[in-house]
Amino acid sequence: MASTMQNNSMVAFQGDHYAFSEIAAKNYFGEEIECLPCKTFERVFAAVEGGEAAFGIIPVENSLTGSIHRNIDLLLEKDLHIVGETFLRIEQHLIAARGVQLKDIKTVYSHPQALEQCRNFLSKLDGIESVASYDTAGSAKMILDKNLRDAAAIASRRAAEDYGMDILCEEIEDIPENFTRFHIIAREAVKLGEPDKTSVVFSMKNIPGALFKSLSVFALRDIDLLKIESRPLRGRPWAYFFYLDFQGHPGEERCINAIRHLQEITSYLKVLGSYKSGQQQKTLM
Amino acid sequence: MASTMQNNSMVAFQGDHYAFSEIAAKNYFGEEIECLPCKTFERVFAAVEGGEAAFGIIPVENSLTGSIHRNIDLLLEKDLHIVGETFLRIEQHLIAARGVQLKDIKTVYSHPQALEQCRNFLSKLDGIESVASYDTAGSAKMILDKNLRDAAAIASRRAAEDYGMDILCEEIEDIPENFTRFHIIAREAVKLGEPDKTSVVFSMKNIPGALFKSLSVFALRDIDLLKIESRPLRGRPWAYFFYLDFQGHPGEERCINAIRHLQEITSYLKVLGSYKSGQQQKTLM
Repeated sequence: MASTMQNNSMVAFQGDHYAFSEIAAKNYFGEEIECLPCKTFERVFAAVEGGEAAFGIIPVENSLTGSIHRNIDLLLEKDLHIVGETFLRIEQHLIAARGVQLKDIKTVYSHPQALEQCRNFLSKLDGIESVASYDTAGSAKMILDKNLRDAAAIASRRAAEDYGMDILCEEIEDIPENFTRFHIIAREAVKLGEPDKTSVVFSMKNIPGALFKSLSVFALRDIDLLKIESRPLRGRPWAYFFYLDFQGHPGEERCINAIRHLQEITSYLKVLGSYKSGQQQKTLM
Repeated sequence: MASTMQNNSMVAFQGDHYAFSEIAAKNYFGEEIECLPCKTFERVFAAVEGGEAAFGIIPVENSLTGSIHRNIDLLLEKDLHIVGETFLRIEQHLIAARGVQLKDIKTVYSHPQALEQCRNFLSKLDGIESVASYDTAGSAKMILDKNLRDAAAIASRRAAEDYGMDILCEEIEDIPENFTRFHIIAREAVKLGEPDKTSVVFSMKNIPGALFKSLSVFALRDIDLLKIESRPLRGRPWAYFFYLDFQGHPGEERCINAIRHLQEITSYLKVLGSYKSGQQQKTLM
């Protein structure tokens, strides 16, 4: 990928160093890439908008817990382009300061998604409280910084290794088929590989069978749908946006036609980006 | 509603007393109803399954933040029936111990959904940390119990009044059109009013255009769809369940036919319940 990159090759991600987003960024762009840790997803978008970083990497979906809705909402609100996609197998470990033992642990800190992915494991630990924090690797760092001897974090092996902490329990996620899908975002629609997948968001006119009609736009042209997701329209209770991924890109005539057709029956339509798909996702609809 | 209720009229809800779920339960069943506070949503389901409570009340969707996925997943996993639906306007307030002032506050505790609903408000409070807790009212109680003078909770007016705490800022939710939709669940498909709405969950056969075909089942019979939501199939990355609400119930011939037709093209289908719809939701698809 390195050849297609700009001079300013900084990649913004949410979390502390060794967060899964940073690992995914290095898998995608190469180990030599410089990564910019951001406290929030809003900050990731702002760093790309403001030119501090050439790219951002954001998790959009996990195969166990579903979509990361905050990022899906930010893609709609902000004017950035999806330019790439990558997948990462997530392995969660229970991590504590050197010498701390499992029986000492009273509190487990991690990102809510990580806590959710290890729900069965955590439910078997009697009398341990789970506390949501803003980041997996950041939880490990916090335990180290505060020298907590009765707390553990759920985070990556890399966080444990680089912070010099112990792994108390390995691969504690409930189901090992645990993958996270990331989007690469940029100010311009730069090409990182041949695009073959497109993400759009739309809201429908209040007409009977509107959702059925909007999907028919793709079905009638044999365009495969990869994903559909509804999100509430803020300020209009029980009205929804629909996020849809389909196979193809606006260089193909049938896709141009589908998008034009979709425009006829939607009150709002935005193409979030066309990009080369990662290797994980299958066509299922 | 009281006349249709069983002898054992306890209603299980997640959270501490004065949580929004309890307020919604009292609106629906009447003030005299006894409510059973449960620490987790799993406990609510278990209380109903085990007969400790005749009904459970669970939030399934908020008009600002979207679905409460854990409950949507539990409806699939557990063998309970949706028997009713109710809506509650959510007003969030910043609550602290008596005499504490806004300038003293360093930490704001609340349920992640409540923090999310007040995102703009919180982002304007400089240097204040938001901490996710398991409950809105429970956060207020924790502040009182620990006598915290530098912390506030986001919770209901009722929690402030009944715990004798001060409201520092009123109606701090970003958008006042903030409604939560609740389901009433029970062991048996009891009738609480004339059913006119049905919730189903299904996964699709791996055939081209499967989603389009499954929606056509309803469109071809002029049955209005009220809601569609995808959730990952645990253990099968990037395969999804679809949750769908439609107008009608299996007493109607066209609905019987639609469900039979849906069975032909799905690999899994479960009817979660038919129930009298609450007053809020509009037909939008």
